[in-house]
Amino acid sequence: MHDVYAAVNPVEPAAGIPAFETSPTTTLRARIPLRLAEIDPRGTAGYAGSKAESKETLAGMDPVLSDWQERLFAASRHGSAQRVLLIIQGMDTAGKGGIVRHVIGSVDPQGVHHAAFKAPTAEELAHDFLWRIEREVPQEGMLGVFDRSHYEDVLIARVRGLADHDEVQRRFAAIRDFEARLAEAGTAIVKVMLHISREEQAERLAARLDRPEKHWKFDPSDIDERAMWEDYQLAYQAAIEATDADHAPWFVVPADRKWFARISVQALLIDALQGLNPQWPAATFDVEAEKARLAASR
Amino acid sequence: MHDVYAAVNPVEPAAGIPAFETSPTTTLRARIPLRLAEIDPRGTAGYAGSKAESKETLAGMDPVLSDWQERLFAASRHGSAQRVLLIIQGMDTAGKGGIVRHVIGSVDPQGVHHAAFKAPTAEELAHDFLWRIEREVPQEGMLGVFDRSHYEDVLIARVRGLADHDEVQRRFAAIRDFEARLAEAGTAIVKVMLHISREEQAERLAARLDRPEKHWKFDPSDIDERAMWEDYQLAYQAAIEATDADHAPWFVVPADRKWFARISVQALLIDALQGLNPQWPAATFDVEAEKARLAASR
Repeated sequence: MHDVYAAVNPVEPAAGIPAFETSPTTTLRARIPLRLAEIDPRGTAGYAGSKAESKETLAGMDPVLSDWQERLFAASRHGSAQRVLLIIQGMDTAGKGGIVRHVIGSVDPQGVHHAAFKAPTAEELAHDFLWRIEREVPQEGMLGVFDRSHYEDVLIARVRGLADHDEVQRRFAAIRDFEARLAEAGTAIVKVMLHISREEQAERLAARLDRPEKHWKFDPSDIDERAMWEDYQLAYQAAIEATDADHAPWFVVPADRKWFARISVQALLIDALQGLNPQWPAATFDVEAEKARLAASR
Repeated sequence: MHDVYAAVNPVEPAAGIPAFETSPTTTLRARIPLRLAEIDPRGTAGYAGSKAESKETLAGMDPVLSDWQERLFAASRHGSAQRVLLIIQGMDTAGKGGIVRHVIGSVDPQGVHHAAFKAPTAEELAHDFLWRIEREVPQEGMLGVFDRSHYEDVLIARVRGLADHDEVQRRFAAIRDFEARLAEAGTAIVKVMLHISREEQAERLAARLDRPEKHWKFDPSDIDERAMWEDYQLAYQAAIEATDADHAPWFVVPADRKWFARISVQALLIDALQGLNPQWPAATFDVEAEKARLAASR
């Protein structure tokens, strides 16, 4: 397979690592108008490797992602405003936590800002829906990760009737403004919808019910939400169509195969970082003079 | 070697993994009065394995630490107030970042709250020294990590004369009260001083100066601080003596060998979690009834 990254990466993966033939930035970018029903949740677009090979891909690209992340962090210590924000959305059990664990888990925790958004608190509800989001925006040099996000306010809010049509439209506009501001401030935004099938969700919920150590992840409301599957699909379509932009692109990532979703998100992050192209900062001191001072201090 | 963990761990490391003969909770606990000069920074107390074997130890115990961390997180979702706070202190280049990367980096990022404390901002200076610390205290279920901490306010503050003797004593009392409150609220506190030698620091600073991609980590003030090495050692001794407590113990971790420091801190965290002994929460719903509802939803 042709390694699309080898030519441009500062850290080249070892030869022979199975790689994407076509970058997920191309194959998985949301096409507007969006028809989720036409996208196979078991798809593996652009990747010809097997599940076993995908583990080599993931592990082989870990150092590439880590290297870019460290450059991003280093550059911010010398004035760069660049940062990355990964927004992960998906139905219950779609694999949001697995992405955090297996993709984000490979980079230095010092450079990661992770925020999981649950049902809003009374204080959060007393503010505009973006209030709690703004507080978790990544600082310069950080890789921010939103496990759920402001999109819940146009997804569950629409499906559950917590916001009417006009309010949802107002929120779409607010989200567009918000994300445009983030992008202008130097944020590379990557928005991922983990696209699973209703059948796969049933399998995963059943697995949680079968294992006592997974019971804490289960909530009876998960099955209530499941009953509104089609409403959610339509809500996702509307939200993605209303907020997809080149500076804040949406990617629909087939997620019935967890391994494919993981290597895809890893590749999307690497691509976003390559786009920023952060560089090791030049020394702001006289290197030879400092070497002499150090020698004198021994 | 005898595996001190195998008997009590919920996830047993694979047979044959080199392990500590004596737990670091015993061998590395600060002895009061503390004499840092008598502790060998190249020591490997309680561990007979080699550097190569330590990698097996670290990797072999990763799943143990991860399992405990997930239990801690899960228990908090059902009312447990337990949490862990790891405080990492040490001279420049002592390896604080390496601990975060190689020990904390193995657990799920969702369960980690990492805070790095730099020189205080104007806003932070306008408050009591604990103000910015309180804001970063881990929530229930989280593994909090402080890379530097409130101890800087009794270390650099003392050495640089930013606080006089009486003020340092006041801060010791405030820290004791603060940590006692954290412990009462369910926090297992682990305080680590990474103990390196002046000679090892020179080697590590030289390595940073030799590598352009490491220049961003170097600051000329590092060499100024180095000139006050003995003052810092005395300040550490005084701070550790004033604030060591069974509910907030200090560990002096020999750190000239990075690999030993890493497996030691990993073991200290595992021990702290074992002490809390968080359990998978029991289901708060009728498992069979939910299985039936799920089946009906297919």
